[in-house]
Amino acid sequence: MATKKVEPRTLKGFRDYLPGTMVPRQAMLRAIEAVFEAWGFVPLATPALEYSEILLGKYGDEGDKLLYRFRDNGDRDVALRYDLTVPLARLVAQHRNELNLPLRRYQVAPVWRAENPQKGRFREFVQCDADIAGATGVVADAEILAVGAAILEAVGVSGYRVLLNHREVLYGVLRASGVTEEGEIRALLREVDKADKLGLGGVLNGLAAAGLGEHRHRSAVDRLLTANEIPDLCDGRLDWLRSAMADDEGRAAVAYLGEVLAALDALGMAGRVVIDPTIARGLDYYTGVIYETRLTDPKVANFGSVMSGGRYDGLVGIFGSQPVPAVGISLGVDRLLDALLELGTLGRGSERVTILVTIFGNETRAASLGLAATLRRDLPAALAAIGLPGRAAVEVATEGGLKKQMQGANRRGADLALVIGPDELAAMRFTLKDLRCGVQEGHDFAAAVEVLAEAVQKRLCDPSAEKRHPS
Amino acid sequence: MATKKVEPRTLKGFRDYLPGTMVPRQAMLRAIEAVFEAWGFVPLATPALEYSEILLGKYGDEGDKLLYRFRDNGDRDVALRYDLTVPLARLVAQHRNELNLPLRRYQVAPVWRAENPQKGRFREFVQCDADIAGATGVVADAEILAVGAAILEAVGVSGYRVLLNHREVLYGVLRASGVTEEGEIRALLREVDKADKLGLGGVLNGLAAAGLGEHRHRSAVDRLLTANEIPDLCDGRLDWLRSAMADDEGRAAVAYLGEVLAALDALGMAGRVVIDPTIARGLDYYTGVIYETRLTDPKVANFGSVMSGGRYDGLVGIFGSQPVPAVGISLGVDRLLDALLELGTLGRGSERVTILVTIFGNETRAASLGLAATLRRDLPAALAAIGLPGRAAVEVATEGGLKKQMQGANRRGADLALVIGPDELAAMRFTLKDLRCGVQEGHDFAAAVEVLAEAVQKRLCDPSAEKRHPS
Repeated sequence: MATKKVEPRTLKGFRDYLPGTMVPRQAMLRAIEAVFEAWGFVPLATPALEYSEILLGKYGDEGDKLLYRFRDNGDRDVALRYDLTVPLARLVAQHRNELNLPLRRYQVAPVWRAENPQKGRFREFVQCDADIAGATGVVADAEILAVGAAILEAVGVSGYRVLLNHREVLYGVLRASGVTEEGEIRALLREVDKADKLGLGGVLNGLAAAGLGEHRHRSAVDRLLTANEIPDLCDGRLDWLRSAMADDEGRAAVAYLGEVLAALDALGMAGRVVIDPTIARGLDYYTGVIYETRLTDPKVANFGSVMSGGRYDGLVGIFGSQPVPAVGISLGVDRLLDALLELGTLGRGSERVTILVTIFGNETRAASLGLAATLRRDLPAALAAIGLPGRAAVEVATEGGLKKQMQGANRRGADLALVIGPDELAAMRFTLKDLRCGVQEGHDFAAAVEVLAEAVQKRLCDPSAEKRHPS
Repeated sequence: MATKKVEPRTLKGFRDYLPGTMVPRQAMLRAIEAVFEAWGFVPLATPALEYSEILLGKYGDEGDKLLYRFRDNGDRDVALRYDLTVPLARLVAQHRNELNLPLRRYQVAPVWRAENPQKGRFREFVQCDADIAGATGVVADAEILAVGAAILEAVGVSGYRVLLNHREVLYGVLRASGVTEEGEIRALLREVDKADKLGLGGVLNGLAAAGLGEHRHRSAVDRLLTANEIPDLCDGRLDWLRSAMADDEGRAAVAYLGEVLAALDALGMAGRVVIDPTIARGLDYYTGVIYETRLTDPKVANFGSVMSGGRYDGLVGIFGSQPVPAVGISLGVDRLLDALLELGTLGRGSERVTILVTIFGNETRAASLGLAATLRRDLPAALAAIGLPGRAAVEVATEGGLKKQMQGANRRGADLALVIGPDELAAMRFTLKDLRCGVQEGHDFAAAVEVLAEAVQKRLCDPSAEKRHPS
C-alpha cells in the first residue's frame, strides 16, 4: 500500500457527520420514515448518477450550472442527481408498466449541487421527499401536504405555518394586470420570490432593474402582495383573490385552493395553512398547487422553508410516451435538524442506555463476554415487555485495563458498567456500577437480564438523568 | 422548462429499486442497523465525494482504475468513494481530537466502482460497515466479527461459516517455505485468493504463469491449502499451523488466533468459525486478523462472501500524525438480500397491513378524510398496546371513483378498505371490507380505532394470509 502522507481534509461544502450529530439526525430520519410508512408511502431508490440529459433543462439555467457533471470512464456524459424529483419522473416513465399507479413513494437520499458554500448551505445534503404519481385532484394535493405536516409534528416541531398557492392563481392575478408573456412572467416571479427578504420596495426596484418597470408589472406585484395583507380568516383571502381575477380560469383555481384547504382541515390541519399567492418556488416544473412551510417559533423563524413542493404534471411526460400527473413534497432534513437543535426538542424519548461490559483480565474475559452475549440475546425481549424496546445498547470494552476502560466509558457517555473480577467469577456474580452517580451493587449471573432491565428502566425514567450524547 | 423528449434510462451498472424490492431491502437495512445500535455502535457519515488523493493508492492499482474520478467545477481532482473504510480512516485522522476513542461506528451507504458490470456486480452498491477504531487486541477483533454474525442471524441467515485468518499466520507459513519478498508475496497471494474457484491445480498453473514456479512457491501454496484439509476440531488446524511455522512470530500469530476463537466462543459463536489460512482478501491494507463469511445452505453456497473485513492498523496513520489501530467488517447488502430472497426468509415478521380509506364522493370526502386522520392519530397506540407497533399503514385513495379506487387497492396489494357512502355518513357509520376474502361489515365511527386494531391483528395472525408486496 502507498504510504505517502496525505492531509486529511474534506471538500468545501461537504461534511463529515460525527456521532454527536449523526445519532440525533438518524433518530430524526427514522421518525420521518416511520410516518411515511404509516401513511402508506413506500420507499424506492434511484442511482446517484444519471445521464446528464435526464437532469439538464429541468432546474432552469442556474440549476444546470450547479450540476456535478463529468465524463465517466466510458466517456458517458453523466451527472450526480440534483434533487429526487426529476429522477423519480424518469423512473416512473421508465418503469411505467411495472408500477401500479397511483404510486405513493418516499425517498431519503443525498443530492449534490455545486453551490457557493455559505452558512447552512452545502454542496451535499439529504433530501427527504414524498410524492404521489398517477393521481390528480384535491385529495392527492391535500394528502401529500398532510403527511409533511405529520412529519413536522412527529419530529417535535409544533410551531409551523404552511403557505399554500396554486400556479394558476398566481398566473390569474398576473393576467388580470395584463402580464401574460411567459418570459416576462418568469422574470417577474423571480423578483416576487424575493419579497420575503426585500419587501415591496425591494421587489419594485428589482422589477425596474429587470426591465419590468411598466405600470402593469407594478400593479401585478402590488396585487400579489396586497392579498397577503387580507386576514386569512373565514376564507377572506380566497374571496379577495376570487374578486381580483379577470377570468373563469383564475376563479376556478381559487375555488380549487378552497377545496384543498377544506380537505386539509378534514385531515386535521385546520389553522395550519394560509393562502399566499406570492409563493412561486424557484423551480420551473410546477403546474398546480405549490407549498412552502415556515417555522413560527421566533428562535427559528429565519430558517427559511423547511418543507416545500407542489404539483408537477408535465415532468414525467418529458421522459415517456404518456404524461403522468404527480404531486410531491420535499423536506430539508439538515435545516430541520438545525431548527430542532435550536429548539432543544431533538431526540426526546429515544435516548438509549449504554451498558458497558468491562474486561477485568484474561482469566475473566470469557465470563465477561458470556455475560455480554446473554444480555444481547435476552435483554431486548425483557425491555420490550416493559415498553422500552430497543432502548439499551450492550458494548464490550476493547481498550486496555479496567481503569482505562472505565475512563473511556465515562468520556463516551456510557451509563452503566458491569465488572467481573476473579473473586466475582468464583462466586458467579458481577458488579453493576451506575457511571453517573457511582453507586455499585453485586448480583448473581443468573439475575443479569432482570437486573439490567430494571436498571435501564430506572435510568430512562429518572428525570434528573441528563442523557449525554456520544461524541 | 425544456420539453425536449428524453429517453428514460439508467446508466449501465446502476439500478432503480422499485418498491417491490425496496420494501424488503429497507426492512433488512433497519434490522441491521438495530443490531449495530444494540451492540453500542453509533452511526456516522462521510461525504460521497473526496479529494482523489485521499482514495488513490489504497486499493491497489486495479482499485485506482475503478474510481469515479473527475475534476469538479472548481477544477479540484475529486472521486466518488470506493468503500467506507478509507474515508473512515481519513475522518478519524481529521477529527482525532473530537472523537473519544475507541470509536465504535457503523455506516450504511452506497459506494461506486467503475467495474465491468456482470450478473450480481454493480457500479453503485450499498456497503454496510462496522469498525472499532482506537483499540487493539482479542476482544475488539472478536467483537467486530460477532456483531457481524449477530446481523446475519437477525436478518434470517442461519447457515453460515466464518473463515478466520491472520495476516501474520499467512506470512509465517510463507516464510517457513522461504517466500519473504514483498512483491513475490503479493503476487502469490493473488493466486491463492483464487483457490476456491480454481483448486490447487489451477492455483499452481497460475503461479507458473505469474513467474512463481519455484519449489518454494509451490511448497508454500501446498502448505496453505493442506492446512484446510486438517479437521478444524479441538484446535486441530491451529496445532497443525503452529507446527508448520519456522519462527516465534508465526507461532505467536497462531496463538493469537486461538485466543480470538476462544473469545468468539464466549460471545456465542462456537461452531460458526473455522481457521482458513488461505484467506488473504484482495485489499492491501489489512495488517492482522482477516475475515470472510460463506453461506452454507446449498441454495446460496455459491453467493461468495457476504461479510468480510479485518484489522488495518496502518491506514489512519497515512492521514494523521499518529497511527490509530482499527478493525472492521463490511456486509454486502445486495448479495445478502439476493440470498434471503433465494432462501425465502426475507421480511418475515415485518409485514404491514395496508388500510385504504376510500372517497365515495365530494359530499363524503371530509368524513372519509376525518376517519383517516383519526386512525392515523390513534391506531398506532392501539396496535402498540397489543404488541403490533408500526404494523399498519393508512392510505387515502387519490384516484377516480370508488370502483377505480377498489381496483387500484387490489392491484397494489392493500388489505382492508373503508367506505363511507351518503347513507353511512347520515348514520355516522362506515363499511370495513376485507379485500382478500371480500367480507364486509358496518361499524360506528366511534368504534373505528378498536375495530381496525382488531382487523389488523386478525390479518397478521391469520396463517393463510399471504402478504402481497406492493410493486
